[in-house]
Amino acid sequence: MTGTSQYALDMAAKVEAFVRDIVVPYEKDLRRDHHGAPTDELVMEMRDKARAAGVLTPHIKADGSHLTQRETAVVLIRSGLSPLGPLACNTMAPDEGNMYLIGHVGSPELKERFLQPLIEGKGRSAFFMTEPANWGGAGSDPSMMKTTCRKDGDHWVVNGRKTFITGAKGAMMGIVMAASEEEQSRGGACMFLVDLPDPAIVIDEVPNTIDTSMPGGHATLTIRDLRIPAGQMLGAPGEGFRYAQIRLSPARLSHCMRWLGACIRAQEIATDYGCRREAFGKTLIDHEGVGFMLAENAILIKQCELMIDWCASVLDTGSLGTAESSIAKVSVSEALMKIADNCIQVMGGTGVTDRTIVEQVFREVRAFRIYDGPTEVHKWSLARKIKREWKQSREALKAAASA
Amino acid sequence: MTGTSQYALDMAAKVEAFVRDIVVPYEKDLRRDHHGAPTDELVMEMRDKARAAGVLTPHIKADGSHLTQRETAVVLIRSGLSPLGPLACNTMAPDEGNMYLIGHVGSPELKERFLQPLIEGKGRSAFFMTEPANWGGAGSDPSMMKTTCRKDGDHWVVNGRKTFITGAKGAMMGIVMAASEEEQSRGGACMFLVDLPDPAIVIDEVPNTIDTSMPGGHATLTIRDLRIPAGQMLGAPGEGFRYAQIRLSPARLSHCMRWLGACIRAQEIATDYGCRREAFGKTLIDHEGVGFMLAENAILIKQCELMIDWCASVLDTGSLGTAESSIAKVSVSEALMKIADNCIQVMGGTGVTDRTIVEQVFREVRAFRIYDGPTEVHKWSLARKIKREWKQSREALKAAASA
Amino acid sequence: MTGTSQYALDMAAKVEAFVRDIVVPYEKDLRRDHHGAPTDELVMEMRDKARAAGVLTPHIKADGSHLTQRETAVVLIRSGLSPLGPLACNTMAPDEGNMYLIGHVGSPELKERFLQPLIEGKGRSAFFMTEPANWGGAGSDPSMMKTTCRKDGDHWVVNGRKTFITGAKGAMMGIVMAASEEEQSRGGACMFLVDLPDPAIVIDEVPNTIDTSMPGGHATLTIRDLRIPAGQMLGAPGEGFRYAQIRLSPARLSHCMRWLGACIRAQEIATDYGCRREAFGKTLIDHEGVGFMLAENAILIKQCELMIDWCASVLDTGSLGTAESSIAKVSVSEALMKIADNCIQVMGGTGVTDRTIVEQVFREVRAFRIYDGPTEVHKWSLARKIKREWKQSREALKAAASA
Amino acid sequence: MTGTSQYALDMAAKVEAFVRDIVVPYEKDLRRDHHGAPTDELVMEMRDKARAAGVLTPHIKADGSHLTQRETAVVLIRSGLSPLGPLACNTMAPDEGNMYLIGHVGSPELKERFLQPLIEGKGRSAFFMTEPANWGGAGSDPSMMKTTCRKDGDHWVVNGRKTFITGAKGAMMGIVMAASEEEQSRGGACMFLVDLPDPAIVIDEVPNTIDTSMPGGHATLTIRDLRIPAGQMLGAPGEGFRYAQIRLSPARLSHCMRWLGACIRAQEIATDYGCRREAFGKTLIDHEGVGFMLAENAILIKQCELMIDWCASVLDTGSLGTAESSIAKVSVSEALMKIADNCIQVMGGTGVTDRTIVEQVFREVRAFRIYDGPTEVHKWSLARKIKREWKQSREALKAAASA
Repeated sequence: MTGTSQYALDMAAKVEAFVRDIVVPYEKDLRRDHHGAPTDELVMEMRDKARAAGVLTPHIKADGSHLTQRETAVVLIRSGLSPLGPLACNTMAPDEGNMYLIGHVGSPELKERFLQPLIEGKGRSAFFMTEPANWGGAGSDPSMMKTTCRKDGDHWVVNGRKTFITGAKGAMMGIVMAASEEEQSRGGACMFLVDLPDPAIVIDEVPNTIDTSMPGGHATLTIRDLRIPAGQMLGAPGEGFRYAQIRLSPARLSHCMRWLGACIRAQEIATDYGCRREAFGKTLIDHEGVGFMLAENAILIKQCELMIDWCASVLDTGSLGTAESSIAKVSVSEALMKIADNCIQVMGGTGVTDRTIVEQVFREVRAFRIYDGPTEVHKWSLARKIKREWKQSREALKAAASA
Repeated sequence: MTGTSQYALDMAAKVEAFVRDIVVPYEKDLRRDHHGAPTDELVMEMRDKARAAGVLTPHIKADGSHLTQRETAVVLIRSGLSPLGPLACNTMAPDEGNMYLIGHVGSPELKERFLQPLIEGKGRSAFFMTEPANWGGAGSDPSMMKTTCRKDGDHWVVNGRKTFITGAKGAMMGIVMAASEEEQSRGGACMFLVDLPDPAIVIDEVPNTIDTSMPGGHATLTIRDLRIPAGQMLGAPGEGFRYAQIRLSPARLSHCMRWLGACIRAQEIATDYGCRREAFGKTLIDHEGVGFMLAENAILIKQCELMIDWCASVLDTGSLGTAESSIAKVSVSEALMKIADNCIQVMGGTGVTDRTIVEQVFREVRAFRIYDGPTEVHKWSLARKIKREWKQSREALKAAASA
Repeated sequence: MTGTSQYALDMAAKVEAFVRDIVVPYEKDLRRDHHGAPTDELVMEMRDKARAAGVLTPHIKADGSHLTQRETAVVLIRSGLSPLGPLACNTMAPDEGNMYLIGHVGSPELKERFLQPLIEGKGRSAFFMTEPANWGGAGSDPSMMKTTCRKDGDHWVVNGRKTFITGAKGAMMGIVMAASEEEQSRGGACMFLVDLPDPAIVIDEVPNTIDTSMPGGHATLTIRDLRIPAGQMLGAPGEGFRYAQIRLSPARLSHCMRWLGACIRAQEIATDYGCRREAFGKTLIDHEGVGFMLAENAILIKQCELMIDWCASVLDTGSLGTAESSIAKVSVSEALMKIADNCIQVMGGTGVTDRTIVEQVFREVRAFRIYDGPTEVHKWSLARKIKREWKQSREALKAAASA
Repeated sequence: MTGTSQYALDMAAKVEAFVRDIVVPYEKDLRRDHHGAPTDELVMEMRDKARAAGVLTPHIKADGSHLTQRETAVVLIRSGLSPLGPLACNTMAPDEGNMYLIGHVGSPELKERFLQPLIEGKGRSAFFMTEPANWGGAGSDPSMMKTTCRKDGDHWVVNGRKTFITGAKGAMMGIVMAASEEEQSRGGACMFLVDLPDPAIVIDEVPNTIDTSMPGGHATLTIRDLRIPAGQMLGAPGEGFRYAQIRLSPARLSHCMRWLGACIRAQEIATDYGCRREAFGKTLIDHEGVGFMLAENAILIKQCELMIDWCASVLDTGSLGTAESSIAKVSVSEALMKIADNCIQVMGGTGVTDRTIVEQVFREVRAFRIYDGPTEVHKWSLARKIKREWKQSREALKAAASA
């Protein structure tokens, strides 16, 4: 991939070697939480090794500067070669996006206190935005944010409910979104940095989900009179949704990167299987029915690489890349689903067992087609954009004609 | 559906009422084995209720006669409305197929001893056919059966390995396939009925799999000097593969029936979700993006019903229905995958949690696309049939021309 | 296929023999109109032979009675084995639907005068319903019918515009829909039988279309002061839309029948090609990439047969079958598209030439996915039905609970 | 798109303006040959205007140098915005590939005599490679080339048959492949430049095909004692297949470029239709069923752009790009099919008429999925490459282990 630096390429190579040599063996490690995700003990053990190997938080340089998105891509794809890789290397969601956001918006003091420990991989974080639809809260519609914050002396007091808060259970810090009364009316919101756990945040439920890669799962929780020192507001008041936009596209794209890595590995496993096993008198891959699936995967992997690289290059221009990351998310997540499905099918009975990671990757990618906006929501917003641009071009034509 | 009897329709209605009223609440029961499947304790508790409700083993009448396949369809689809339903009603694989086979081939004595307890739902059974490919055994190719049997006085002694033996762990009886030395050379085999557990059968591994509905999972195991009284041979020696063929199509089709039931329920759940929830200013189902998925599902469900009914009617003529059940299996399993996938997508974040059975149904159907022959193997055999028929029709034309 | 009569099976066999022996050679006949469709001279020549062979209008018996829909299916599928077959046998749209409608609604006098010549295959007919969307007329919304009729003595005078009027050019009679002023307000309409051509009906345009099987193409036209004797009103005033509903499902389903026949033939041609040609060292069909396409087609053809038979059986109960024919139309038309596409792909370069009918069938089926309601409109109405039924079941539950 | 020059961008803009302003109106021009393709008279009239506008042969500079492939992409995509554009601008197949090949391999004398008139757009050319499969000739297997050449004094004499020779009818020159007796045995061949027409080349048939954009169609022809002066051999003897490889990937990719341009235009037309028309109470694009299709197209168009740009960049490194152009060809041609199909569907009845170019683009792209290697052949060769690379990596691992 062009458009990247030697630093990033070197780091990507180190990350890949680390994941293949050190992390992959951990895939058989049995330390899993109730939900099926790796325990924090396991995560921290792997991180110690990543730190020693110089691949911890590989997308942020020692001087605190963040790699460009195109550089990030080459590194994060490699970290994703194992579902455990992003946890080991500290490139996992939601931490990666949280670090990105605090790095862009936080004051030096807040960075020192909240960002630095995250970069050092000392613990996990959560992003408290989504609210339960059946509570009438903010699903995808910002103006519906129902979690409130009100000033009380030199503190803010937050009350509300949140859902699908990935990693909230077991996190050491969080970014909490809430809206004051006046902000609610004009569609604004605030962001706060908070230490976790906090007794004011009660986890109501962590449902089992089809995906099992994320420690802490996806919690539904209640916030009751959470008191936050005023100095822990992230950025300026009322700017919460703007900040969420800054985080949105890079975070969405980083999912694409990590899961592409996982699917590249799944393809390697399926290829190896298809090249070793025999059935009906010949090597599996020599059956066109099998070989074509692997060939289709090779095509789809290339498509994903190109989409990620393109969207990253748009973000690197400073654009929010909202439409571009919608395009990339739909294209990549649907392609990854097909890749993972093909890999299972190539491997037959073995494919649906946990003897390899292919089965897990299939489940993770299924969830990914929902997380960060289901395909349908992205198509909906793209259709609106197409209509908007059509109108603009018509008006431009009319203006030109009447000039 | 036409072509069925009032008896079957009445039984189907009773089964449906039982599953909806009694079984569905058990879906939240936490008694699951290590692999994620319901424990036998849970199964037996449900079966007691099924017995009381008159819906235990509903496809076999009190006089021991089996419903026709078209009648079986209307009953088994209803038993599948919950993933627990077939276990509760004793219509689950592999028991259903094993009962069918013993019923068709067994002597009165063997039926009395082995079939009757199965019909009464006293325990589970397993079918020991598939062998590990990496052991060089019989995957899909009968002539490769490597598990041996040899006569030793009035016993047979069996040695070998088997894999993907569903429900072997915890079963009370099994049907074991093996081939004597001479049978191996001419592609024959024997079947034996055995009490389980037997110390001569050692379970090496029960891998975790993407599906979790079957107690005992899918075991890989070793058979060492398993001694079986000669009277426990099922049917005649050398006829094992012919018997396997008798079992094949009905068993394959019964999977289609049960999982169609599960997908009908998933569609109900997704419809209910889509008709209650709002997003972007209207009820979910009023978004065409959602409504079209539910409409597509309605079409696919009808397709599955028709395929099952047609294939059942072919089997009811006495045909082995090999090609027909291949057609039905591919058509139904691929359609069910799409239905389950659509249901998840309609339900968004909720769809990938275990708050409903939709998530499980998706995983089960993914496995079903592999079990009982992956789509590709069925297409391969259909292509061979197309070629064979083309040749025959050409030769018929030539014969007619030269006559 | 069950559910049909010996009469229908015999007639189907005769039709098949006629189409294969007599009609197929006409596929190379060069008599085509400007639009690419067979000329009426060619049609009449084939019809003479059909009459002689006893297969003209085979779905209507000598006593004027119409076969059941399930019987019609077995006959019309065979007539479709050549794109010319329905023209030769007089089972083509829109004549087939027009005969059906007049047969159900017409008075003895109107049947004598207008239906009898159609049954005898003396000429073609047209159905004047659809109006240009850009004229604000009735696209799919009946209440928008803008073509007017007003009583003037013992005549009706019709004015308006129509579009996509298949076969209007060259037709000998037509069924014209129009609404009086008061009917327009309450969503009613009238139908009239008219002799054609009539100078009051001016054809504005017959666009070239991707399909080329229908003589006269699909005309856009203007009706100016068309005077029709009052006795030529079909049925009762104000009942036009109800009559259109009677015609709707059978006509829609008869498209499915004819094009299934064409796709069965395409599959035969592709199979023959795949079984004769060699590439890369083996017979084409022995390449799984080719064999799987033909196997998929075999599965899809069975799906279409079952859908048609099921929908026909619903219509035979007297139901309007609106939802059922939507389900069948979507399922069949999308499956036929895949079948035709696979056939072309199997045949490579030859597939895209007119050396066989496969190329034409592909084009016809593409158009069929639009004609008689695009897939999306059917899904839309099915989604509405799903919602309606959900509401009804909820209300039923509530009523039961409060009873 | 990055990686291109200001020259290319400027030229692309000029080409786009020319196609939109001057060429598009010719789409209604009725001058078509028997097969449906534009007549040479029409082509030459458009070329005169292209010459005047400075956009004739825009991918070759005045000094004879060829744009890079990435530069070529931005220009050729624009020339494809009308199906007539490549003919008008002289970027059409097979001329574009023939110019490329002669430019790379031809001697100064041959360039002067044969290339220069092509660059000046004075006439069309053909590439005589493919042989009829039923003649036992070279389909895709070079070693099967059956057309012979033998030296006779200072001439070569060629005999044989060719098929699917695009544009042979009406061409002013051609590149003819043939093999001497000894070359046939070792898989070599020669290429010759010949003036056309020549009485020794007899066109046997030009079948009607689903595509209609290429003047002269795709001819099957016989070569009988065609005498060619020895100096008209292109390059060295025995190198014919190597030269064909040089031409292969760029020619394949240029198809992708042109047809992407056509699909971008189809999307514009469908968008315009969807934004103007109303149905069921709202603008068409506001129906998600329609909006999602246009959104999917936007995603697919981006995918195609990225694939073309990537493959072009590989070719620009000097690589033959065989695997890469297979990947690009499959990915792009399948995506374009979906785009064109969606556009028709959005436009309903209008979509299947020739009122817009959408209907033609659909037919052209269908053929494109076959031309230059059907999808299945590319997947087959990719599967072989995957297996080869798997073997190499295993051997590398073994070598490393034993070192």
